[in-house]
Amino acid sequence: MKTLLVSIVVAASSVGMLAQQNVGFKSSSVVSPIVNSDNSITFQVEAPKAKSVIVKGDWEAEEGIGTLKKGKDGIWSYTTPALPSEMYTYRVNVDGVIGIDPTNPFSCRDVGSIFSLIYVNNGCADYYQVKDVPHGTMSTTWYHSNEVNLDRRLTIYTPPCYEKSDRSYPVLYLLHGSGGDETAWAELGRVARIMDNLIAEGKAEPMIVVMPNGNSSKQASPGETSENLSYKPLMTNMIPDSYKNGKYEKAFPEIVNFVDSRYKTIPAKDKRALAGLSMGGMHTLFISATYPDMFGYIGLFSAGVNFSTVDMTLPIYSDLDGKLANQSKAGYQLYWIACGNTDFLYQNNKDLMSRMDKVGLKYTYHESTRGHLWVNWRQYLLEFSQKLFK
Amino acid sequence: MKTLLVSIVVAASSVGMLAQQNVGFKSSSVVSPIVNSDNSITFQVEAPKAKSVIVKGDWEAEEGIGTLKKGKDGIWSYTTPALPSEMYTYRVNVDGVIGIDPTNPFSCRDVGSIFSLIYVNNGCADYYQVKDVPHGTMSTTWYHSNEVNLDRRLTIYTPPCYEKSDRSYPVLYLLHGSGGDETAWAELGRVARIMDNLIAEGKAEPMIVVMPNGNSSKQASPGETSENLSYKPLMTNMIPDSYKNGKYEKAFPEIVNFVDSRYKTIPAKDKRALAGLSMGGMHTLFISATYPDMFGYIGLFSAGVNFSTVDMTLPIYSDLDGKLANQSKAGYQLYWIACGNTDFLYQNNKDLMSRMDKVGLKYTYHESTRGHLWVNWRQYLLEFSQKLFK
Repeated sequence: MKTLLVSIVVAASSVGMLAQQNVGFKSSSVVSPIVNSDNSITFQVEAPKAKSVIVKGDWEAEEGIGTLKKGKDGIWSYTTPALPSEMYTYRVNVDGVIGIDPTNPFSCRDVGSIFSLIYVNNGCADYYQVKDVPHGTMSTTWYHSNEVNLDRRLTIYTPPCYEKSDRSYPVLYLLHGSGGDETAWAELGRVARIMDNLIAEGKAEPMIVVMPNGNSSKQASPGETSENLSYKPLMTNMIPDSYKNGKYEKAFPEIVNFVDSRYKTIPAKDKRALAGLSMGGMHTLFISATYPDMFGYIGLFSAGVNFSTVDMTLPIYSDLDGKLANQSKAGYQLYWIACGNTDFLYQNNKDLMSRMDKVGLKYTYHESTRGHLWVNWRQYLLEFSQKLFK
Repeated sequence: MKTLLVSIVVAASSVGMLAQQNVGFKSSSVVSPIVNSDNSITFQVEAPKAKSVIVKGDWEAEEGIGTLKKGKDGIWSYTTPALPSEMYTYRVNVDGVIGIDPTNPFSCRDVGSIFSLIYVNNGCADYYQVKDVPHGTMSTTWYHSNEVNLDRRLTIYTPPCYEKSDRSYPVLYLLHGSGGDETAWAELGRVARIMDNLIAEGKAEPMIVVMPNGNSSKQASPGETSENLSYKPLMTNMIPDSYKNGKYEKAFPEIVNFVDSRYKTIPAKDKRALAGLSMGGMHTLFISATYPDMFGYIGLFSAGVNFSTVDMTLPIYSDLDGKLANQSKAGYQLYWIACGNTDFLYQNNKDLMSRMDKVGLKYTYHESTRGHLWVNWRQYLLEFSQKLFK
């Protein structure tokens, strides 16, 4: 019996027991990354044959670039300086081949690239992770857009107890940037974790969060449309036409109507918020200005308000000053603008605020450090969501 | 104005416009993988400094191993033989460093490793992808287990029109294997796509699919519990105790009760199915035998029925023959057993069927080629789900 058991274990080791037989699960003695007690991170890569190993991430210290040094055992390593609490994403470059950290099982897609991820705790990153609190439900579901005659996918967060409760909830509509899609805020933006944790602490009102897809020519994110893998996520230098032909902004009430009909919402302006990052900030600007009676809270996060790239003669984009004046007259609870002081859209956002000043539209401005990064967008959500529906 | 635009484009190129400034999105002229017209796949990796590049995947030809050859331009390439239609997962080994395909943006996690993925069309893989059909909703939500006093996460598929309809639906409970979790059937098992497509063709009844987490010591998958990234997914040689202490199986009615209270189900034995792969097949065996009035349809997919690794004196596992006799007497619509003819659990499944023969429990046996692979489990789901609730 013991012999039988031993031979089973040996057989199992060779095939990866109860796992795929054909694709080896390589085990390694290397553990990477490791967050040290001083909040530095150590990266290790086993690559005995490599000539060069570099890590590149979205932390600020040393511009997010670390050159690993080779140890005697063929294991390369590098330790960052102490880092502020954050969720960091990074990739590893081994002799010019860029990939994820081979021993880190946690990853996320940002546009067309897969990144490894790691948290430095004891600060804002605590809100991006799971605490021992009640959890909401995350769903992907589909609405029909008459404007483009397509079923289109949405990601929806409903707060803890939503299903059991008789009450109705306010709604935050949260828009992604160029190259993103309806999965971006959920994965990179850590929406479920941020909302669960803020609601548990009583810092945010329980709310529904709706994350639509801002590319009006597509039904859903890459891999989730009938084009399947032939629709590849790509970061282009200019915003694609399908993000700025005005169809998405014009048809936005379709999404609001769908959400109000499907979910237990409070269908009132002062119980609706709209916010977006980068291109989604541009969408937010024009949607909220075009429909001034729809949203009581507006958030522009590093908004893509470089209008030289947009056909400003389209009805949705034209007469912005007039629309903003109108929106100011219609009133709202909060117009919140946030930008990083090294963002390449910093001056565009300054210019927009001058324009708002001229037409008398009141806003609250929050300036952070750093640039056009998810690090900032998560922090903006953390701040903005606490100001809503109170 | 033109000068301004040009300078914007140049600036944008250098920072990845409207994307993260700090983490470069490297673009490459290489496209990989490419599915050729004869259903072979060509893999290409740009690695001018590498000495060796190998691809390892879960296709059968050449044992899923391909040695890439270096071209003059530093681009390595390899083309498989023509492959049957499937979703294939693979990894690339560059000089001993194993990672995903650097230019393939599509990946999935299997236990503790990230794999690149690709489809060969015109066969079963068509069912694993998105067609132009109505889509159901996928959710992750939480139930409370009194047995282990934890909130635990479930993945739930509800069929198209579920939300609009007044009718109630049958439920398939679908269990993962050792090292898997409540995300495995959704991601690797392509449940939403298989169900959407079969329902659209009228080949499967509209049904709810519930995918629980079979590790009774954990609330959810790695990264989704309050242990966060310190709970790493791992494939071990033996099934961990928390998968086979009987708590999950004993407490399974908690999940059924939760689903019946939350969703529009038909709470009847002949409208409930239970199936599982590998360790989930073992769970299915014991849950359905312990609660013979709960499930009318039972599916064992490459079931982990090597009982030498389990404490068979625990009440949930003891007297299996008596329980099976009892289950036979209680009756059911279908008891379906599937296994690959090179699966390392093949003989264990044969032994189980002999045991069932002795106690008079009737089953239908489906034998496929190949081994302990998602390739088989997706195909078993495709077949099994068409037999349910008719």
